[in-house]
Amino acid sequence: MPPPLTTVADPRRPSAAEEARTIAASTNVGTLASLTKSGDPWASFVTYGLLDGAPVLCVSYLAEHGRNLAADPRASLAVVAPGAEADPLASPRITLAGIVEHPVGAELDAARAAHVEAVPAAKYYIDYSDFAVWVLRVQRVRWVGGYGRMDSATAADYAAATADPLSAIAAGAVEHLNDDHAGALAEMARALGGFPDAESATCTGVDRYGMELKVSTPRGAAYTRVGFGGAVGSAEKLRAATVRLVRQARESG
Amino acid sequence: MPPPLTTVADPRRPSAAEEARTIAASTNVGTLASLTKSGDPWASFVTYGLLDGAPVLCVSYLAEHGRNLAADPRASLAVVAPGAEADPLASPRITLAGIVEHPVGAELDAARAAHVEAVPAAKYYIDYSDFAVWVLRVQRVRWVGGYGRMDSATAADYAAATADPLSAIAAGAVEHLNDDHAGALAEMARALGGFPDAESATCTGVDRYGMELKVSTPRGAAYTRVGFGGAVGSAEKLRAATVRLVRQARESG
Repeated sequence: MPPPLTTVADPRRPSAAEEARTIAASTNVGTLASLTKSGDPWASFVTYGLLDGAPVLCVSYLAEHGRNLAADPRASLAVVAPGAEADPLASPRITLAGIVEHPVGAELDAARAAHVEAVPAAKYYIDYSDFAVWVLRVQRVRWVGGYGRMDSATAADYAAATADPLSAIAAGAVEHLNDDHAGALAEMARALGGFPDAESATCTGVDRYGMELKVSTPRGAAYTRVGFGGAVGSAEKLRAATVRLVRQARESG
Repeated sequence: MPPPLTTVADPRRPSAAEEARTIAASTNVGTLASLTKSGDPWASFVTYGLLDGAPVLCVSYLAEHGRNLAADPRASLAVVAPGAEADPLASPRITLAGIVEHPVGAELDAARAAHVEAVPAAKYYIDYSDFAVWVLRVQRVRWVGGYGRMDSATAADYAAATADPLSAIAAGAVEHLNDDHAGALAEMARALGGFPDAESATCTGVDRYGMELKVSTPRGAAYTRVGFGGAVGSAEKLRAATVRLVRQARESG
């Protein structure tokens, strides 16, 4: 793949902790690994909500995983970001590992609310006597972004990070940029993305820090990034940031 | 829910082992639970193929789960049937638990072929020196069909069972039956499904042994089944079986 010919102005990407928080917030289902009474690993489908990034489970003691957690609090939760990647191993995914605890007092109220907000059907069974709410205290975080993109995050970084504020609108923004602003994307790739020989560019992703671009050059196709110069928190600010980038590209181009 | 008023002619449903084989064959992705070196449960996303119902994994020793399996062969695999249930806990799912082994000789060839058939991208990395093929020797099977439908299956029953031969065409058959044969479904519900007071019926599922029906009666909505009188193995035989059922319903009605 051809390398950039000039400096990429702002290559900042979300951190592993930020990527993990974004994936955790992208769905309400995952697979729990717990331990059977003989210490064997038991994988089972679960629903969850999030309380400051910590998965909140609501499981029955009649279910095998409910009995497992009650006997040994060690657990991990694997979550795959929804979206139909043709190649499944290209799917962004995380493992959050730690121990489960029953929250009490105000935290129990908040945990219940977080679970029901994420899993509305839980309101029908969360008060059944065989169900219990557990919070997974995350001690280890492993993020895999797809082929060759992976990292671990500390529990502290994961707790401090936030989910991407643009994730709900990113797909629409990508479509709009490619449909209506293909020329501007090529200008940005040439002036800010390190590929002055870009003939065209398509946007393949948007996150709080910038846009992922696939560029066509006489040297072949390449991937680069055009950053917003900081975190962008809303659709409105995303529009302003892209307008600013186009102006910047034209001024420097 | 109103009970049937007459005998349901053929209520046979797939066994838990058959349901599990069908779910296992419905996708190529699942979540593996393995053990870390401190014996903690580790959940991670994996792809798999099937060799006589046994999951075949191809994982890198550079991945945490690859190192885990090499150190302790105990593992389980959770698989959720694809399909967008509005309520995630209504999703059919299984856990297959046992120990992993490296297949050898002819079984290794068959296992490699099974994995690559299910996961075509694996052909690019299956021969890398850090990747290994594992077969999960299934010792325990847990099936959850949705709310209130669940059972365990023995390893022997799971090994002997087959995936539903109609699963690839079931959704299309359900649509066709409801669009073009609503009257016949009501006749079947009245004569064979135990609801002589059915005003109408819609098909909600088709499997090798029969059709699931939702019936409307003056007593309220109910669910029942109309069976084919044995296993049906192809689209052609499904058509013949439904024609036979309509005739049977009219003769007895």
